[in-house]
Amino acid sequence: MMNSSIPQTMQAAVMHSPRQIRIETVPVPDIAPDEVLIKVMAVGICGSDLHYYTHGRIGKYVVEKPIILGHECSGDVAAVGADVTGFKVGDRVAVEPGVTCGRCEACKEGRYNLCPDVQFLATPPVDGAFVQYIKIRQDFVFRIPDSLSYEEAALIEPFSVGIHAAARSKLTPGSTIAIMGMGPVGLMAVVAAKAYGAAEIIVTDLEPLRLDAAKKLGADHVINVAEQDALEEIQRLTDGKGVDVAWETAGNPKALQTALGSLRRGGKLAVVGLPAQDEIPLNVPFIADNEVDIYGIFRYANTYPKGIRFLESGIADVMTLVTDRYSLQDTQEAMERALNHKSECLKVVVYPNGVPEAE
Amino acid sequence: MMNSSIPQTMQAAVMHSPRQIRIETVPVPDIAPDEVLIKVMAVGICGSDLHYYTHGRIGKYVVEKPIILGHECSGDVAAVGADVTGFKVGDRVAVEPGVTCGRCEACKEGRYNLCPDVQFLATPPVDGAFVQYIKIRQDFVFRIPDSLSYEEAALIEPFSVGIHAAARSKLTPGSTIAIMGMGPVGLMAVVAAKAYGAAEIIVTDLEPLRLDAAKKLGADHVINVAEQDALEEIQRLTDGKGVDVAWETAGNPKALQTALGSLRRGGKLAVVGLPAQDEIPLNVPFIADNEVDIYGIFRYANTYPKGIRFLESGIADVMTLVTDRYSLQDTQEAMERALNHKSECLKVVVYPNGVPEAE
Amino acid sequence: MMNSSIPQTMQAAVMHSPRQIRIETVPVPDIAPDEVLIKVMAVGICGSDLHYYTHGRIGKYVVEKPIILGHECSGDVAAVGADVTGFKVGDRVAVEPGVTCGRCEACKEGRYNLCPDVQFLATPPVDGAFVQYIKIRQDFVFRIPDSLSYEEAALIEPFSVGIHAAARSKLTPGSTIAIMGMGPVGLMAVVAAKAYGAAEIIVTDLEPLRLDAAKKLGADHVINVAEQDALEEIQRLTDGKGVDVAWETAGNPKALQTALGSLRRGGKLAVVGLPAQDEIPLNVPFIADNEVDIYGIFRYANTYPKGIRFLESGIADVMTLVTDRYSLQDTQEAMERALNHKSECLKVVVYPNGVPEAE
Amino acid sequence: MMNSSIPQTMQAAVMHSPRQIRIETVPVPDIAPDEVLIKVMAVGICGSDLHYYTHGRIGKYVVEKPIILGHECSGDVAAVGADVTGFKVGDRVAVEPGVTCGRCEACKEGRYNLCPDVQFLATPPVDGAFVQYIKIRQDFVFRIPDSLSYEEAALIEPFSVGIHAAARSKLTPGSTIAIMGMGPVGLMAVVAAKAYGAAEIIVTDLEPLRLDAAKKLGADHVINVAEQDALEEIQRLTDGKGVDVAWETAGNPKALQTALGSLRRGGKLAVVGLPAQDEIPLNVPFIADNEVDIYGIFRYANTYPKGIRFLESGIADVMTLVTDRYSLQDTQEAMERALNHKSECLKVVVYPNGVPEAE
Repeated sequence: MMNSSIPQTMQAAVMHSPRQIRIETVPVPDIAPDEVLIKVMAVGICGSDLHYYTHGRIGKYVVEKPIILGHECSGDVAAVGADVTGFKVGDRVAVEPGVTCGRCEACKEGRYNLCPDVQFLATPPVDGAFVQYIKIRQDFVFRIPDSLSYEEAALIEPFSVGIHAAARSKLTPGSTIAIMGMGPVGLMAVVAAKAYGAAEIIVTDLEPLRLDAAKKLGADHVINVAEQDALEEIQRLTDGKGVDVAWETAGNPKALQTALGSLRRGGKLAVVGLPAQDEIPLNVPFIADNEVDIYGIFRYANTYPKGIRFLESGIADVMTLVTDRYSLQDTQEAMERALNHKSECLKVVVYPNGVPEAE
Repeated sequence: MMNSSIPQTMQAAVMHSPRQIRIETVPVPDIAPDEVLIKVMAVGICGSDLHYYTHGRIGKYVVEKPIILGHECSGDVAAVGADVTGFKVGDRVAVEPGVTCGRCEACKEGRYNLCPDVQFLATPPVDGAFVQYIKIRQDFVFRIPDSLSYEEAALIEPFSVGIHAAARSKLTPGSTIAIMGMGPVGLMAVVAAKAYGAAEIIVTDLEPLRLDAAKKLGADHVINVAEQDALEEIQRLTDGKGVDVAWETAGNPKALQTALGSLRRGGKLAVVGLPAQDEIPLNVPFIADNEVDIYGIFRYANTYPKGIRFLESGIADVMTLVTDRYSLQDTQEAMERALNHKSECLKVVVYPNGVPEAE
Repeated sequence: MMNSSIPQTMQAAVMHSPRQIRIETVPVPDIAPDEVLIKVMAVGICGSDLHYYTHGRIGKYVVEKPIILGHECSGDVAAVGADVTGFKVGDRVAVEPGVTCGRCEACKEGRYNLCPDVQFLATPPVDGAFVQYIKIRQDFVFRIPDSLSYEEAALIEPFSVGIHAAARSKLTPGSTIAIMGMGPVGLMAVVAAKAYGAAEIIVTDLEPLRLDAAKKLGADHVINVAEQDALEEIQRLTDGKGVDVAWETAGNPKALQTALGSLRRGGKLAVVGLPAQDEIPLNVPFIADNEVDIYGIFRYANTYPKGIRFLESGIADVMTLVTDRYSLQDTQEAMERALNHKSECLKVVVYPNGVPEAE
Repeated sequence: MMNSSIPQTMQAAVMHSPRQIRIETVPVPDIAPDEVLIKVMAVGICGSDLHYYTHGRIGKYVVEKPIILGHECSGDVAAVGADVTGFKVGDRVAVEPGVTCGRCEACKEGRYNLCPDVQFLATPPVDGAFVQYIKIRQDFVFRIPDSLSYEEAALIEPFSVGIHAAARSKLTPGSTIAIMGMGPVGLMAVVAAKAYGAAEIIVTDLEPLRLDAAKKLGADHVINVAEQDALEEIQRLTDGKGVDVAWETAGNPKALQTALGSLRRGGKLAVVGLPAQDEIPLNVPFIADNEVDIYGIFRYANTYPKGIRFLESGIADVMTLVTDRYSLQDTQEAMERALNHKSECLKVVVYPNGVPEAE
């Protein structure tokens, strides 16, 4: 069911070495019977993209040959494999970027985010989405309603991290929550906390732009850590009781310590952000005395249908995150922008098949 | 329903200042309508007793006036209050030493170990069990079968910590577990792990006496950390996969780091031991990448009926823990013994109403 | 701390036999040190009140002497016992009507709604709230914000049933739910489902008044079972997949069978309504083949703080339920109205200290 | 990696119509790169095999062409596909008989037993294991230790149902349980209950042979329902309190009603057996008033590694179940025996590659 209008070749933004992205012509991929070819319409730039872009590696994952980055993406179905029945050409879709084996112990237990054989877009050696077409197995493609934009569909990816954190940390309706770090993951986590019925959402960051965005998305209280002591402020806001749940999304050691210390007895902490250093001093007697639960968060599982439903319900205007737009040609410029202007940008989006006209 | 044979006064081992215990005559307590008077038959010495004995405080709990220590106890019902229907004089019982309010949020949610108003034996200013009679609210008294000794009944207290850790850390039958630290809490935790169906129990310590006891109680592999690298050994024993669950019971920072590092992806860690220092460096990226769960453990809740049932089933010969026996008169000697001969003692027991004859 | 303005006697609506309520003068109750005296401002009439009113019994609970009915209530603190520190005279409060022992196994496990010794307002032989003042233990009294009316505070009681059902049946955000029966419990259950983030709420009843109210409160689809086949309609609305969760609130056997049959594989059913007959035929192979979970619901536990927070957030205009208002003098008329005009009434409210002027 | 000793053809017991099984020569199957060829050493006859054998259908599953029955099996690896690295020729293995898609919502959530696309041995139109060789995807093959016999490995299948029921019904160590029906599934459920630490196991049946076997496997109390009232007896054995958990394994309506009625408040019921009729009258007010949980059980998921570990630990002598042994030639005779002599047989085993000599 190859659509006749699909070209043989396409443009791709290929990173050859740190901070060296070239636009190249590459073949449009063939699809297997259970795969879908996606015409990529929007790709958000993520912190991990920036990390590969600047350092050429994240931990054990090393860029050893030219790679295409980008994994927060959405688009149109351009072709479907012979066995695909759930999609047709032209469907507007969000793409979950990690294709899992479905057969290992982790997959069979429903924790497929821990699958050791996952193929994750833009994680070496797997190419990503700064390209005009990508192929992906059909069960990681999700149709979106007309009411959702391509950008919103791409944002389901960072949103998924928050949804997964909410489920793992057992956030229940009516709870109070502190979310540390208002980068895109933190901002979408605010929306996730709202979807899970949090009664009071307290957030921290030091960039006014981000704190303003958090307010718009549903945060009840914002704390600028450049100006206020976050722990003191959270205690004040909770009448000295502490919050039910806290999430650290920035990978900041101090923020993690604050998140832990801000919990009430029996509170729950999700570790979402990856710190640059390995060993972080944590108050262990506090953990034991207060019977704190701590949950490590690695990506997400089973979140896309929920994410689409939440955004479709109009829970928050997440388009407010999209501050910068670039064509595929300008992918390197987009990366530099995201890297160097953190106080001006929230989510930088690349449009591999053309930047849409402003409405 | 006061039993006519109850004396007006009794002997008590009163600590006046660190390492100063005097035997004194004090009044036998009156009981309220919902209380039971217990003739104390056996009291185990716990690490917290030793800590108060040497330092006069544990964290915020400070010994400000003379106090009777001891909280792991059992005995005979000597009298029952007017409203007590569940017990009669002569019943052999185990005593759960923390009386909770039953009305706060923690109590109402079933986490009564987090009750802020708990009255816990031998936690200042509440007197403990190194005394001939104690009173306690009826709902913290549990009848034991004839097959259980008073010592076993007293050991339900440290056993409870292991049972609570098993429940909180979701230890399921067939799991592999590493337990760090084979003091009495660690040893009873081995029995708890066995009761919860652990398939492979790996334990660590540096005292041969303790490791031998662990073997007798059901440990499958013992690691002497003075001789072997525990992390390496656990990886070897699990074919490089790591254990499903790990518990740290000793409050040792290195052991805690090893416990964390020994986990498989998706593994669960219980923090049982209280370290002396507050801040302990933990590998946070490991927690996030592997979606580790960490559970703080503070005492226990709803464990006594289970603990009695487990011991009654003959799951392990826990009398092997009782290495030293002292009369109430010799309570100070018992404390010194427990304090200074850790490589020779497991559980030191005080018998306030007479040391039983050797059988 | 008795307020000097408290009278010695008060008016009460006492039921002497079925459908015989007399207004009598009775003493204002004395309060114990841990109790609060409440000046009752609003009392909702509940189905169980009507059942006692007409039949003089519900199952094993038999009215054997004159009783004051009414248990959905709110009011002002009129006096506080000597040990009460959390309230002061004049506080506006909601009252949780079942005082539990805090000491039995059920209470200690956090399931205090199963406490065998609960004292529940208006459940024989305990008197209820159709009276000017009631006393209640302080831990079942909850302060309400100024933004909540007395009627809303009284509605926390039926709301609690829905909140408890949501928690027990593991309703997660983004789920689809079918709620059968739109009496007051069903209507407040719609609000609970909304608070728990249900994505699609489908409801059934046969009274247009109730279905209209459900729509106002947040139902996405209403099915009038007098006109449509509910099962067919739910299958149609879910594209043949079935709902994630279903609750039966009316005690109607047919509705229960429909609720069960409407579930997707792995779906969850809460049995909220009490049918008049004991044995109801259920499709057991369907339960097994589809791994359905069924959860019995009996009252609620730990719901009041959440309920207040949800209503405070403005989640729904629950005042829409209050269709009829009566003074204490007219309690019998209020009962008759609620009993005989089900197609015209939603919640009938009695005001023991005066019907408020229309605003 | 085809083993040179594998023949081109093999013998199979093919059912052509109800009660008509013929031994035929068929080709040995080719294996795909991710499949393993198993030389079948032992196959247990299951109730579902007997049902297809007598009625030619189970519900919607209809035998429309000749089929090979049998799905509880074990054997030796005879060949491995090109991509298989976890097994080598000669490995002794247990076979989990349902191959799932790994991609649907149920699979991704860890409930792969609900996969709509499962290929289950001996469920039309999929052939089963009454044959000399079968092929199966590698992730449904599990190596067994030398200490386990082929019969024990085949019994992991019915054991899995019990393990799954234990997990779903949240059976915790120290619990009391009633298990209704001591057919092979019920008997292996006794072993599962023991593995999950049940403190008191009460079982019912009406065949003395089965009740005796239950005792040998670990049941604490056996009730012959031909002689005793099961509900009364369970109440007596639990001092009127009821059991924590009950499982119905026989598909018997009366047994299901007894199982439900035998529960304590807050008790949990697993529906394991499939009744012949659809509608069974259940006491719904009892479910609600006592907040019973009911869990439907359909096959199992993630049980094989646990099952092997439990049997390896020597938890019970399950060989006691194997009462009858037949060669493949005599498959029809084996089926007739199992069908007609229920009071004499427990598990009837077919050996497709030769009945082992008695030891």
